[in-house]
Amino acid sequence: MHNQSHQLTCPTQGPGLYEITDRAVTFVRDVGVLNGVLTVYCRHTSASLVIQENADPDVQRDLQAFFKRLVPDGDPLFCHTAEGPDDMPAHVKSALTATSLTIPIVEGAPTLGTWQGIYLFEHRQAPHKRQIILQVTGT
Amino acid sequence: MHNQSHQLTCPTQGPGLYEITDRAVTFVRDVGVLNGVLTVYCRHTSASLVIQENADPDVQRDLQAFFKRLVPDGDPLFCHTAEGPDDMPAHVKSALTATSLTIPIVEGAPTLGTWQGIYLFEHRQAPHKRQIILQVTGT
Amino acid sequence: MHNQSHQLTCPTQGPGLYEITDRAVTFVRDVGVLNGVLTVYCRHTSASLVIQENADPDVQRDLQAFFKRLVPDGDPLFCHTAEGPDDMPAHVKSALTATSLTIPIVEGAPTLGTWQGIYLFEHRQAPHKRQIILQVTGT
Repeated sequence: MHNQSHQLTCPTQGPGLYEITDRAVTFVRDVGVLNGVLTVYCRHTSASLVIQENADPDVQRDLQAFFKRLVPDGDPLFCHTAEGPDDMPAHVKSALTATSLTIPIVEGAPTLGTWQGIYLFEHRQAPHKRQIILQVTGT
Repeated sequence: MHNQSHQLTCPTQGPGLYEITDRAVTFVRDVGVLNGVLTVYCRHTSASLVIQENADPDVQRDLQAFFKRLVPDGDPLFCHTAEGPDDMPAHVKSALTATSLTIPIVEGAPTLGTWQGIYLFEHRQAPHKRQIILQVTGT
Repeated sequence: MHNQSHQLTCPTQGPGLYEITDRAVTFVRDVGVLNGVLTVYCRHTSASLVIQENADPDVQRDLQAFFKRLVPDGDPLFCHTAEGPDDMPAHVKSALTATSLTIPIVEGAPTLGTWQGIYLFEHRQAPHKRQIILQVTGT
């Protein structure tokens, strides 16, 4: 039974999707698990995780545009504004997407579909160093 | 320690919720795990997973109606339109719901609440054959 | 290999975020797992789970305000109204957030970020006793 974790650091330069698929797949291969589960976990509440199409970059652009319109920066609804007009919207966007993902591992690789990539979804304007935990359990 | 996976194929005929609870519960029973975790994973970015009420079919109808209004087909906000007016909205709806679910197993069954069903949430108009991975880890 | 679960009861008094971080961390410590995964599972479809900022209480207030505006009680779009004007909106809010969370465990504790708390997100007006399953797998 393997049971191993690894912390990734993902530097960000403003809102957008930052792909971490390769690093996750490499970690699974390096641990040497054939069958089991990969957990991806984001240690933040103003950035989150999504699995999205990895082919047309317009998908990432459109996804951001949708969330920006749905949860606009500087919305007067929000009281929590001390950390800037993009802070509370970032918390909401995180709640609407995912903080954790769990992906089965079969024959030594995560069972991602052909068009699936794993992304950190950064919601803040300022550069950040985001921490993501990869955890593998299996045999 | 059991550690086993199985791929389901779920044919869809347009947008809606397609229940997979029975197949998931049967898989857990067949593997023979008493305590552990069931992971349900959707290998697509234009269909997703939800756990919803399994009693009144109006809940499924209303859930679809809400997502259709929130993310309308053909929204001029979107650039990614080559695959049809329902494609980018499908990606957004997937990001707003779940690609993976993890359900504890106790006494040989997933710990679903009385009113909980596991559903594939299809977002595309055209018929598809969706692939879902079930993975069980436990003793 | 540890593989153990525990059911929490979380009484609620109307919509809001109810923190369960301490109970989850204590359960992990009591099981004595050093490395592995914690699954948190909500057995309901009108209450859900979120990981959110645990510092400024305004974040919780604003999060609720956003979801209340996005999915208003009594929306004429909904047919499923027999259980009250806040019932179908509760199902939608649950679909938009999380029913399950998976958090890696490293050195005997969940790898929560500094500002992360685990919350039950109650969406109904009436008091409820919500059931949450904690499950730990690891070594």
